[in-house]
Amino acid sequence: MARPQSPRGQGRRRVIDAAVELFAEHGVRGTSLQMIAEHLGVTKAAVYYQFHAKEDIVLAVLEEALEDMAAFVSAAEAEPSPDAAATAALRGLVDLMVGHRKAVAALMRDPEVERIMAAHADLDSLVGRLTALLLGPSPTVRRRIAVSVVGAGVAQAGIDPMLADVDDETLRAQLLELGPTMLARG
Amino acid sequence: MARPQSPRGQGRRRVIDAAVELFAEHGVRGTSLQMIAEHLGVTKAAVYYQFHAKEDIVLAVLEEALEDMAAFVSAAEAEPSPDAAATAALRGLVDLMVGHRKAVAALMRDPEVERIMAAHADLDSLVGRLTALLLGPSPTVRRRIAVSVVGAGVAQAGIDPMLADVDDETLRAQLLELGPTMLARG
Repeated sequence: MARPQSPRGQGRRRVIDAAVELFAEHGVRGTSLQMIAEHLGVTKAAVYYQFHAKEDIVLAVLEEALEDMAAFVSAAEAEPSPDAAATAALRGLVDLMVGHRKAVAALMRDPEVERIMAAHADLDSLVGRLTALLLGPSPTVRRRIAVSVVGAGVAQAGIDPMLADVDDETLRAQLLELGPTMLARG
Repeated sequence: MARPQSPRGQGRRRVIDAAVELFAEHGVRGTSLQMIAEHLGVTKAAVYYQFHAKEDIVLAVLEEALEDMAAFVSAAEAEPSPDAAATAALRGLVDLMVGHRKAVAALMRDPEVERIMAAHADLDSLVGRLTALLLGPSPTVRRRIAVSVVGAGVAQAGIDPMLADVDDETLRAQLLELGPTMLARG
Protein backbone atom coordinates (compact mmCIF):
# COMPACT_ATOMS: atom_id res chain seq x y z
CA MET A 1 0.00 0.00 0.00
CA ALA A 2 1.48 3.37 -1.02
CA ARG A 3 2.30 5.78 1.76
CA PRO A 4 3.52 9.39 1.50
CA GLN A 5 7.31 9.28 1.32
CA SER A 6 9.08 12.27 2.82
CA PRO A 7 12.83 12.04 3.37
CA ARG A 8 11.95 11.35 7.01
CA GLY A 9 9.49 8.70 5.79
CA GLN A 10 12.28 6.96 3.89
CA GLY A 11 14.47 6.96 6.99
CA ARG A 12 11.63 5.46 9.00
CA ARG A 13 11.13 2.80 6.34
CA ARG A 14 14.83 1.87 6.36
CA VAL A 15 14.88 1.62 10.16
CA ILE A 16 11.73 -0.52 10.19
CA ASP A 17 13.06 -2.87 7.51
CA ALA A 18 16.41 -3.26 9.27
CA ALA A 19 14.69 -3.85 12.61
CA VAL A 20 12.46 -6.56 11.14
CA GLU A 21 15.52 -8.37 9.78
CA LEU A 22 17.25 -8.20 13.16
CA PHE A 23 14.06 -9.19 15.04
CA ALA A 24 13.85 -12.26 12.80
CA GLU A 25 17.41 -13.21 13.64
CA HIS A 26 17.67 -12.26 17.32
CA GLY A 27 14.10 -11.77 18.55
CA VAL A 28 12.78 -8.43 19.77
CA ARG A 29 14.46 -8.95 23.13
CA GLY A 30 17.85 -9.65 21.54
CA THR A 31 17.80 -6.57 19.30
CA SER A 32 18.95 -3.08 20.34
CA LEU A 33 18.77 0.34 18.69
CA GLN A 34 22.57 0.15 18.57
CA MET A 35 22.40 -3.06 16.52
CA ILE A 36 19.90 -1.46 14.15
CA ALA A 37 22.22 1.54 13.71
CA GLU A 38 25.20 -0.72 12.98
CA HIS A 39 23.14 -2.76 10.51
CA LEU A 40 22.29 0.47 8.64
CA GLY A 41 25.78 1.93 8.99
CA VAL A 42 24.46 5.04 10.77
CA THR A 43 24.83 6.45 14.28
CA LYS A 44 22.52 5.41 17.08
CA ALA A 45 21.40 9.06 17.23
CA ALA A 46 20.13 8.78 13.66
CA VAL A 47 18.00 5.77 14.60
CA TYR A 48 16.89 7.50 17.80
CA TYR A 49 15.71 10.46 15.68
CA GLN A 50 13.14 8.09 14.11
CA PHE A 51 12.27 5.87 17.07
CA HIS A 52 13.07 6.39 20.75
CA ALA A 53 12.65 2.71 21.65
CA LYS A 54 12.53 -0.58 19.79
CA GLU A 55 9.01 -1.09 21.17
CA ASP A 56 7.98 1.88 19.03
CA ILE A 57 9.34 0.09 15.97
CA VAL A 58 7.38 -3.06 16.83
CA LEU A 59 4.30 -0.89 17.22
CA ALA A 60 4.95 0.77 13.85
CA VAL A 61 5.21 -2.64 12.15
CA LEU A 62 1.99 -3.82 13.78
CA GLU A 63 0.23 -0.55 12.92
CA GLU A 64 1.17 -0.98 9.25
CA ALA A 65 -0.23 -4.50 9.21
CA LEU A 66 -3.41 -3.42 11.00
CA GLU A 67 -3.92 -0.51 8.59
CA ASP A 68 -3.56 -2.87 5.62
CA MET A 69 -5.98 -5.28 7.28
CA ALA A 70 -8.54 -2.58 8.05
CA ALA A 71 -8.36 -1.41 4.42
CA PHE A 72 -8.98 -4.81 2.83
CA VAL A 73 -11.67 -5.78 5.36
CA SER A 74 -13.59 -2.56 4.63
CA ALA A 75 -13.18 -3.09 0.89
CA ALA A 76 -14.41 -6.71 1.17
CA GLU A 77 -17.42 -5.61 3.22
CA ALA A 78 -18.38 -3.30 0.37
CA GLU A 79 -18.53 -6.17 -2.16
CA PRO A 80 -22.02 -6.75 -3.60
CA SER A 81 -22.42 -10.46 -2.71
CA PRO A 82 -21.29 -12.77 0.14
CA ASP A 83 -19.26 -14.86 -2.32
CA ALA A 84 -17.44 -11.82 -3.69
CA ALA A 85 -16.90 -10.59 -0.13
CA ALA A 86 -15.40 -13.93 0.97
CA THR A 87 -13.13 -14.05 -2.09
CA ALA A 88 -11.94 -10.47 -1.50
CA ALA A 89 -11.36 -11.20 2.20
CA LEU A 90 -9.33 -14.29 1.42
CA ARG A 91 -7.26 -12.44 -1.17
CA GLY A 92 -6.65 -9.67 1.35
CA LEU A 93 -5.57 -12.16 4.00
CA VAL A 94 -3.17 -13.88 1.62
CA ASP A 95 -1.72 -10.53 0.49
CA LEU A 96 -1.34 -9.43 4.11
CA MET A 97 0.42 -12.60 5.25
CA VAL A 98 2.66 -12.89 2.21
CA GLY A 99 3.35 -9.14 2.05
CA HIS A 100 4.33 -8.93 5.72
CA ARG A 101 5.83 -12.40 5.68
CA LYS A 102 9.20 -11.52 7.16
CA ALA A 103 7.71 -9.25 9.83
CA VAL A 104 5.07 -11.80 10.81
CA ALA A 105 7.66 -14.55 11.14
CA ALA A 106 9.85 -12.26 13.24
CA LEU A 107 7.10 -11.09 15.53
CA MET A 108 4.67 -14.02 15.68
CA ARG A 109 6.08 -15.86 18.65
CA ASP A 110 7.54 -12.98 20.56
CA PRO A 111 6.04 -12.65 24.05
CA GLU A 112 6.43 -8.86 24.00
CA VAL A 113 4.49 -8.71 20.76
CA GLU A 114 1.74 -10.88 22.23
CA ARG A 115 1.39 -8.37 25.05
CA ILE A 116 1.16 -5.44 22.62
CA MET A 117 -1.34 -7.28 20.41
CA ALA A 118 -3.49 -8.36 23.35
CA ALA A 119 -3.78 -4.71 24.38
CA HIS A 120 -4.80 -3.70 20.84
CA ALA A 121 -8.61 -3.64 20.92
CA ASP A 122 -8.86 -2.95 17.16
CA LEU A 123 -7.30 -6.29 16.29
CA ASP A 124 -10.06 -8.41 17.84
CA SER A 125 -12.71 -6.45 16.04
CA LEU A 126 -10.83 -6.67 12.72
CA VAL A 127 -10.34 -10.43 13.09
CA GLY A 128 -14.04 -10.76 13.91
CA ARG A 129 -15.05 -8.84 10.78
CA LEU A 130 -12.60 -10.84 8.64
CA THR A 131 -13.94 -14.13 10.01
CA ALA A 132 -17.52 -13.04 9.35
CA LEU A 133 -16.60 -12.27 5.73
CA LEU A 134 -14.92 -15.65 5.23
CA LEU A 135 -17.83 -17.50 6.85
CA GLY A 136 -20.57 -15.74 4.90
CA PRO A 137 -24.18 -15.65 6.13
CA SER A 138 -25.54 -18.72 8.03
CA PRO A 139 -22.39 -20.84 7.57
CA THR A 140 -22.62 -24.63 7.72
CA VAL A 141 -20.36 -26.57 10.10
CA ARG A 142 -18.39 -27.64 7.04
CA ARG A 143 -17.77 -24.02 6.07
CA ARG A 144 -16.78 -23.06 9.62
CA ILE A 145 -14.20 -25.85 9.68
CA ALA A 146 -12.89 -24.86 6.24
CA VAL A 147 -12.49 -21.23 7.37
CA SER A 148 -10.57 -22.34 10.45
CA VAL A 149 -8.25 -24.54 8.37
CA VAL A 150 -7.71 -21.91 5.65
CA GLY A 151 -7.11 -19.08 8.12
CA ALA A 152 -4.52 -20.98 10.13
CA GLY A 153 -3.02 -22.54 7.02
CA VAL A 154 -2.49 -19.24 5.22
CA ALA A 155 -0.97 -17.69 8.35
CA GLN A 156 1.35 -20.67 8.82
CA ALA A 157 2.43 -20.95 5.19
CA GLY A 158 3.66 -17.35 5.34
CA ILE A 159 6.04 -18.09 8.21
CA ASP A 160 6.86 -21.77 7.62
CA PRO A 161 10.68 -22.05 7.61
CA MET A 162 10.30 -25.01 5.25
CA LEU A 163 8.85 -22.62 2.66
CA ALA A 164 11.50 -19.93 3.15
CA ASP A 165 12.92 -20.70 -0.32
CA VAL A 166 9.55 -20.16 -2.03
CA ASP A 167 9.27 -16.65 -3.47
CA ASP A 168 6.37 -14.37 -2.54
CA GLU A 169 4.65 -14.51 -5.93
CA THR A 170 4.58 -18.31 -6.05
CA LEU A 171 3.37 -18.54 -2.47
CA ARG A 172 0.64 -15.95 -3.08
CA ALA A 173 -0.54 -17.67 -6.28
CA GLN A 174 -0.69 -21.12 -4.68
CA LEU A 175 -2.50 -19.91 -1.57
CA LEU A 176 -5.04 -18.08 -3.72
CA GLU A 177 -5.67 -21.34 -5.58
CA LEU A 178 -5.91 -23.53 -2.48
CA GLY A 179 -8.08 -21.26 -0.34
CA PRO A 180 -11.15 -20.84 -2.55
CA THR A 181 -11.15 -24.57 -3.38
CA MET A 182 -11.51 -25.30 0.30
CA LEU A 183 -14.04 -22.58 1.04
CA ALA A 184 -16.12 -23.60 -1.98
CA ARG A 185 -16.69 -26.98 -0.37
CA GLY A 186 -18.62 -25.27 2.43
CA MET B 1 -5.04 -46.71 21.41
CA ALA B 2 -5.67 -49.50 23.94
CA ARG B 3 -3.38 -49.58 26.95
CA PRO B 4 -3.19 -52.18 29.74
CA GLN B 5 -5.64 -51.05 32.43
CA SER B 6 -4.69 -52.06 35.95
CA PRO B 7 -6.64 -50.47 38.83
CA ARG B 8 -3.64 -48.15 39.16
CA GLY B 9 -3.88 -47.47 35.43
CA GLN B 10 -7.48 -46.36 35.84
CA GLY B 11 -6.51 -44.03 38.66
CA ARG B 12 -3.78 -42.56 36.47
CA ARG B 13 -6.27 -42.10 33.66
CA ARG B 14 -8.73 -40.26 35.91
CA VAL B 15 -5.99 -37.96 37.25
CA ILE B 16 -4.74 -37.19 33.73
CA ASP B 17 -8.25 -36.44 32.44
CA ALA B 18 -9.04 -34.19 35.40
CA ALA B 19 -5.71 -32.40 35.04
CA VAL B 20 -6.30 -31.74 31.33
CA GLU B 21 -9.68 -30.16 32.13
CA LEU B 22 -8.11 -27.94 34.77
CA PHE B 23 -5.12 -27.07 32.55
CA ALA B 24 -7.60 -25.97 29.88
CA GLU B 25 -9.37 -23.71 32.35
CA HIS B 26 -6.49 -22.34 34.44
CA GLY B 27 -3.31 -23.09 32.48
CA VAL B 28 -0.60 -25.43 33.77
CA ARG B 29 0.75 -22.69 36.01
CA GLY B 30 -2.64 -22.00 37.57
CA THR B 31 -3.37 -25.67 38.37
CA SER B 32 -2.23 -27.48 41.56
CA LEU B 33 -2.33 -31.13 42.65
CA GLN B 34 -4.73 -29.92 45.37
CA MET B 35 -7.12 -28.59 42.71
CA ILE B 36 -6.94 -31.89 40.81
CA ALA B 37 -7.73 -33.79 44.02
CA GLU B 38 -10.72 -31.55 44.74
CA HIS B 39 -11.96 -31.93 41.17
CA LEU B 40 -11.88 -35.72 41.60
CA GLY B 41 -13.26 -35.64 45.14
CA VAL B 42 -10.20 -37.48 46.50
CA THR B 43 -7.36 -36.53 48.86
CA LYS B 44 -4.22 -34.86 47.62
CA ALA B 45 -2.34 -37.95 48.83
CA ALA B 46 -4.34 -40.08 46.39
CA VAL B 47 -3.27 -37.84 43.51
CA TYR B 48 0.29 -37.74 44.81
CA TYR B 49 0.31 -41.58 44.76
CA GLN B 50 -0.05 -41.35 40.97
CA PHE B 51 2.01 -38.23 40.21
CA HIS B 52 4.43 -36.39 42.46
CA ALA B 53 4.25 -33.14 40.49
CA LYS B 54 1.95 -31.62 37.90
CA GLU B 55 4.90 -31.50 35.49
CA ASP B 56 4.80 -35.32 35.54
CA ILE B 57 1.17 -35.19 34.44
CA VAL B 58 2.04 -32.84 31.57
CA LEU B 59 4.79 -35.24 30.59
CA ALA B 60 2.39 -38.20 30.72
CA VAL B 61 -0.06 -36.38 28.42
CA LEU B 62 2.72 -35.53 25.98
CA GLU B 63 4.09 -39.08 26.12
CA GLU B 64 0.68 -40.48 25.21
CA ALA B 65 0.40 -38.16 22.22
CA LEU B 66 3.94 -38.97 21.09
CA GLU B 67 3.30 -42.72 21.40
CA ASP B 68 0.17 -42.39 19.28
CA MET B 69 2.11 -40.31 16.76
CA ALA B 70 5.01 -42.78 16.59
CA ALA B 71 2.52 -45.61 16.03
CA PHE B 72 0.67 -44.01 13.11
CA VAL B 73 3.87 -42.67 11.50
CA SER B 74 5.41 -46.15 11.54
CA ALA B 75 2.20 -47.66 10.17
CA ALA B 76 2.05 -45.05 7.38
CA GLU B 77 5.69 -45.69 6.48
CA ALA B 78 4.80 -49.35 5.97
CA GLU B 79 2.14 -48.51 3.35
CA PRO B 80 2.93 -49.89 -0.12
CA SER B 81 2.74 -46.62 -2.12
CA PRO B 82 3.52 -42.93 -1.47
CA ASP B 83 -0.15 -42.02 -2.00
CA ALA B 84 -1.34 -44.61 0.50
CA ALA B 85 1.37 -43.46 2.91
CA ALA B 86 0.32 -39.80 2.63
CA THR B 87 -3.34 -40.70 3.13
CA ALA B 88 -2.52 -42.82 6.18
CA ALA B 89 -0.31 -40.07 7.60
CA LEU B 90 -3.03 -37.45 7.16
CA ARG B 91 -5.64 -39.70 8.77
CA GLY B 92 -3.26 -40.32 11.66
CA LEU B 93 -2.65 -36.60 12.09
CA VAL B 94 -6.37 -35.83 12.08
CA ASP B 95 -7.07 -38.64 14.58
CA LEU B 96 -4.25 -37.42 16.81
CA MET B 97 -5.37 -33.79 16.83
CA VAL B 98 -9.07 -34.56 17.22
CA GLY B 99 -8.48 -37.39 19.71
CA HIS B 100 -6.25 -35.26 21.93
CA ARG B 101 -8.19 -32.11 21.15
CA LYS B 102 -8.82 -31.00 24.71
CA ALA B 103 -5.26 -31.76 25.82
CA VAL B 104 -3.72 -30.00 22.83
CA ALA B 105 -5.85 -26.89 23.41
CA ALA B 106 -4.88 -26.87 27.08
CA LEU B 107 -1.17 -27.37 26.50
CA MET B 108 -0.50 -25.71 23.13
CA ARG B 109 0.35 -22.22 24.30
CA ASP B 110 1.77 -23.00 27.70
CA PRO B 111 5.38 -21.79 28.05
CA GLU B 112 6.23 -24.68 30.39
CA VAL B 113 5.00 -27.15 27.79
CA GLU B 114 7.07 -25.46 25.09
CA ARG B 115 10.15 -25.99 27.26
CA ILE B 116 9.34 -29.67 27.77
CA MET B 117 8.62 -30.19 24.06
CA ALA B 118 11.77 -28.39 22.96
CA ALA B 119 13.80 -30.78 25.12
CA HIS B 120 12.07 -33.81 23.57
CA ALA B 121 14.38 -34.92 20.77
CA ASP B 122 11.93 -37.60 19.56
CA LEU B 123 9.37 -35.00 18.57
CA ASP B 124 11.52 -33.31 15.91
CA SER B 125 12.32 -36.62 14.33
CA LEU B 126 8.65 -37.70 14.37
CA VAL B 127 7.52 -34.40 12.84
CA GLY B 128 10.20 -34.80 10.18
CA ARG B 129 9.01 -38.32 9.30
CA LEU B 130 5.37 -37.20 9.26
CA THR B 131 6.21 -34.26 6.99
CA ALA B 132 8.14 -36.55 4.62
CA LEU B 133 5.10 -38.85 4.39
CA LEU B 134 2.74 -35.97 3.63
CA LEU B 135 5.11 -34.52 1.05
CA GLY B 136 5.79 -37.76 -0.79
CA PRO B 137 8.86 -38.25 -2.98
CA SER B 138 10.17 -35.21 -4.96
CA PRO B 139 7.35 -32.86 -3.93
CA THR B 140 6.45 -29.87 -6.11
CA VAL B 141 6.34 -26.39 -4.58
CA ARG B 142 2.55 -26.63 -4.82
CA ARG B 143 2.54 -29.80 -2.75
CA ARG B 144 4.91 -28.33 -0.17
CA ILE B 145 2.61 -25.34 0.28
CA ALA B 146 -0.46 -27.60 0.52
CA VAL B 147 1.25 -29.71 3.22
CA SER B 148 2.10 -26.59 5.20
CA VAL B 149 -1.49 -25.30 4.98
CA VAL B 150 -3.07 -28.68 5.79
CA GLY B 151 -0.72 -29.38 8.70
CA ALA B 152 -1.30 -26.03 10.37
CA GLY B 153 -4.99 -26.05 9.48
CA VAL B 154 -5.66 -29.47 11.01
CA ALA B 155 -3.77 -28.52 14.16
CA GLN B 156 -5.66 -25.24 14.45
CA ALA B 157 -9.11 -26.67 13.76
CA GLY B 158 -8.65 -29.05 16.70
CA ILE B 159 -8.12 -26.21 19.15
CA ASP B 160 -10.14 -23.39 17.55
CA PRO B 161 -12.46 -22.03 20.26
CA MET B 162 -14.91 -21.10 17.48
CA LEU B 163 -15.30 -24.83 16.72
CA ALA B 164 -15.68 -25.88 20.37
CA ASP B 165 -19.35 -26.76 19.73
CA VAL B 166 -18.49 -29.12 16.83
CA ASP B 167 -18.37 -32.74 18.01
CA ASP B 168 -15.27 -34.88 17.43
CA GLU B 169 -16.84 -37.13 14.80
CA THR B 170 -18.02 -34.24 12.63
CA LEU B 171 -14.69 -32.47 12.92
CA ARG B 172 -12.77 -35.64 12.06
CA ALA B 173 -14.98 -36.39 9.05
CA GLN B 174 -14.73 -32.85 7.65
CA LEU B 175 -10.97 -32.64 8.10
CA LEU B 176 -10.54 -36.02 6.40
CA GLU B 177 -12.55 -34.68 3.46
CA LEU B 178 -10.72 -31.34 3.25
CA GLY B 179 -7.17 -32.59 3.65
CA PRO B 180 -6.87 -35.05 0.76
CA THR B 181 -8.63 -32.58 -1.57
CA MET B 182 -5.88 -30.12 -0.89
CA LEU B 183 -3.01 -32.58 -1.03
CA ALA B 184 -4.36 -34.06 -4.25
CA ARG B 185 -3.83 -30.70 -5.93
CA GLY B 186 -0.08 -31.11 -5.41
